[in-house]
Amino acid sequence: MSLRDALSYARAHNARFLEELKSFIRFPSVSSQPKHSAEVRKCAEWLAAHMERIDLQRAAVIPTERHPLVYGEWKRAPSRPTVLIYGHFDVQPADPLSAWHSPPFAPQVRGEYLYGRGACDDKGQLFIHLKAIESLLRTEGKLPVNVRCLFEGEEEIGSPNLPAFLSRNANKLRATVAVVSDTRILGPNRPAIHYAERGALSAELEVSGPAYDLHSGNFGGAVHNPLQALCEMLTRLHDGEGRVQIPGFYDRVLNVTPKERKYMRHTGPGDQEILKDAEVAYSWGEPEFTLYERTTARPALTINGITGGYQGPGSKAVIPAQARAKLNFRLVPAQDPKEIDRLFRRYVTQIKPQTVRCSVRSEPGAKPVLINPGNSAIRAAAEAYRKAFGVAPVFLRSGGTIPIVNSFQQFLHLPTVLMGFALPDARLHAPNENLHLPTFSRGIATSIWFLRLIADSAPGDSARWNLREEDVVSTG
Amino acid sequence: MSLRDALSYARAHNARFLEELKSFIRFPSVSSQPKHSAEVRKCAEWLAAHMERIDLQRAAVIPTERHPLVYGEWKRAPSRPTVLIYGHFDVQPADPLSAWHSPPFAPQVRGEYLYGRGACDDKGQLFIHLKAIESLLRTEGKLPVNVRCLFEGEEEIGSPNLPAFLSRNANKLRATVAVVSDTRILGPNRPAIHYAERGALSAELEVSGPAYDLHSGNFGGAVHNPLQALCEMLTRLHDGEGRVQIPGFYDRVLNVTPKERKYMRHTGPGDQEILKDAEVAYSWGEPEFTLYERTTARPALTINGITGGYQGPGSKAVIPAQARAKLNFRLVPAQDPKEIDRLFRRYVTQIKPQTVRCSVRSEPGAKPVLINPGNSAIRAAAEAYRKAFGVAPVFLRSGGTIPIVNSFQQFLHLPTVLMGFALPDARLHAPNENLHLPTFSRGIATSIWFLRLIADSAPGDSARWNLREEDVVSTG
Repeated sequence: MSLRDALSYARAHNARFLEELKSFIRFPSVSSQPKHSAEVRKCAEWLAAHMERIDLQRAAVIPTERHPLVYGEWKRAPSRPTVLIYGHFDVQPADPLSAWHSPPFAPQVRGEYLYGRGACDDKGQLFIHLKAIESLLRTEGKLPVNVRCLFEGEEEIGSPNLPAFLSRNANKLRATVAVVSDTRILGPNRPAIHYAERGALSAELEVSGPAYDLHSGNFGGAVHNPLQALCEMLTRLHDGEGRVQIPGFYDRVLNVTPKERKYMRHTGPGDQEILKDAEVAYSWGEPEFTLYERTTARPALTINGITGGYQGPGSKAVIPAQARAKLNFRLVPAQDPKEIDRLFRRYVTQIKPQTVRCSVRSEPGAKPVLINPGNSAIRAAAEAYRKAFGVAPVFLRSGGTIPIVNSFQQFLHLPTVLMGFALPDARLHAPNENLHLPTFSRGIATSIWFLRLIADSAPGDSARWNLREEDVVSTG
Repeated sequence: MSLRDALSYARAHNARFLEELKSFIRFPSVSSQPKHSAEVRKCAEWLAAHMERIDLQRAAVIPTERHPLVYGEWKRAPSRPTVLIYGHFDVQPADPLSAWHSPPFAPQVRGEYLYGRGACDDKGQLFIHLKAIESLLRTEGKLPVNVRCLFEGEEEIGSPNLPAFLSRNANKLRATVAVVSDTRILGPNRPAIHYAERGALSAELEVSGPAYDLHSGNFGGAVHNPLQALCEMLTRLHDGEGRVQIPGFYDRVLNVTPKERKYMRHTGPGDQEILKDAEVAYSWGEPEFTLYERTTARPALTINGITGGYQGPGSKAVIPAQARAKLNFRLVPAQDPKEIDRLFRRYVTQIKPQTVRCSVRSEPGAKPVLINPGNSAIRAAAEAYRKAFGVAPVFLRSGGTIPIVNSFQQFLHLPTVLMGFALPDARLHAPNENLHLPTFSRGIATSIWFLRLIADSAPGDSARWNLREEDVVSTG
């Protein structure tokens, strides 16, 4: 088994790969903002054309009710397993724009990093697999396995149309394993495979008081300010040590076993490392858990934004009519987003002051995920990392959420390999998001190795890769 | 003493007066927003030209470091008192724009009301005096007193340049009494003179945490969210019943005497009336005081705005690097804004969680004001209201702040008459600000009567109007 030619090709064409990735990043494909819809579409068209150019078959933009999917495949290894490669080409909003050192959609290389919105999440990681495929096809003329690429334009808005698409096309999308590259590793020389993801639930709490904004001189002291009522309610979501105070919130949380806690202490980032990544001096939250545990094995509730009253320059003496907070839950096995939504809404009615009115809007949410690190696809991925990075990966829990893993399990009955390449300081979702270029190159090598290893570990035996109950424990 | 001709003139030209006022309102003279600076200037030029047209002398735009003043006078009654008429032509920001039924700077009459930003605060009330002057000059050829008009373009940003102007020009601005029309009456048939104004102090509290926005999936549960820390701190500014919890905050508050409380209960708005004006169902705040007392004789602290995190459509999973709140104190005699600022800053350092950094910015603030309702100028004003409205005014405390009253006392040694014409539902500072047109007409008659009565009550004796210590009790 020699991959020398493919690996050499990837190295030789690295500079061109980077220029192509920059073109990809230049599309402001922000899925959450309607004004960018056309750019999401253009980005999809660029991606499909690029997939056609590297000789993937049936490359196409597939419309959905909102933002399109992009599909392409290579199906010329009939007796071999089929790998479904998932990624997303939509990105988070770029604001606050003023905090970027270079414009978010004008990608720029500084030192070993490429800066730009989507450089890492997820355009850069998605592109790693396309460049691995190109390197194999251009040197060997074929791939060691069958491949289906499915790239989404709605990941950052919770994939509203993907589950139905998977459900409708379950037969057409048959595969043996799914690969998702949208997770972090521990450092340039510390590859990692994620075996757990937190679930998520986003909600918006609106507090309404007077019918219109009041003059705070005329009414200050006699009318409950919706902004203040909102603060009071938000404060009551946590106790003084950072535990969520919603009754029943922790009832279904599975405790991490002492064995896993020990493994996590040895392999995961230490408290100081997490504080350094966050660039904060002090930690916060449940004192009985390490920061790694708090951010991965424990649920969390964060306020993502508050809007209310006057926000312009100078001052304006108003008691605003409304105030709103955007909230985000991260959930762990075996919490269920639907149940947490119910508990939250009930708690809101309990803590709502009589003086104001409240409403809650929530999105569907995603279930938490736990994958057995012993399954065969994970073992192939681990060996691929070892070949490309020169060091075996560790197995990690992640604090993030990849709802698609739920869907692959539910609709396609596929085990998922979370094969990520984001460094801890990649500033995902934040200004100055970046991709570490040496890791990008190693990522391509990892993907080349993975496609070969997964073929070799199950030659001609796609049944070998069928889901076993114990391989993937999705709490979905 | 007959004012029949002047009063008839005002009635006959009412429709034209209204069209002129609409022209005045069309300037978006928002002093707090730099983008509107040119419009503040244009508005000043329009006003000075208008004053010249009605035969005021020396009408001029006077530049300051930021927004100009407008001055004009009539000084041809050498032995008579001089009335300094103050008003402001700058306005509050108009947002939220979507809540206006007609555009804020395209004034529109609907029923008995003129809608537009500044219709009442303070362009409409300022204009009342100009139209009274015009009516007297066009019919009698002269005014019964000397008049100086001083109109400001920075009232809504705390009059940063006016005190120094008054101090430098104290000799040139000598007068016997100041009249300010920027206060409320109780209803169309319930005129009122204000004898107390609350002081004010605006501050901004900023809470900073991580160096950049963090992904709430990756760090949620381990890092103190600046938005949450801000909510926790803001919640600690009040106790559960609405009392301000800043140590020492109430130390200098003068208790209202039982006699005044009784007067206030008879003359002021009842709790239900205040709730109706605010369009809220429930009251809030210090339970041992009526709502009228809470909003006038008791200090208050309100949150005017909170900014932090993602505020766009949909959701964005961030822990923001910063969060900010705009706060507004209303102070009563004998609280001092400088001392309150110190107490607030000390309290912030006490309640600041170790996990975040805080900073406080504050504006200079205005002292509270208390005027003896027995002084002669107030008595002349009361009689003028009685003539124009057919009913004697009541004496009211106001919850608002008119810092200029401090300055007239400090630099010009002038007593001030707070002769307002705003109805309780005029929506000052809010969307759909309006002016009640019948009250506008009566206001012009009131001003005509006042100028005559104040002349007659002190014929040829300007010394009569010198300040007596007991006439004006400014806690400045």
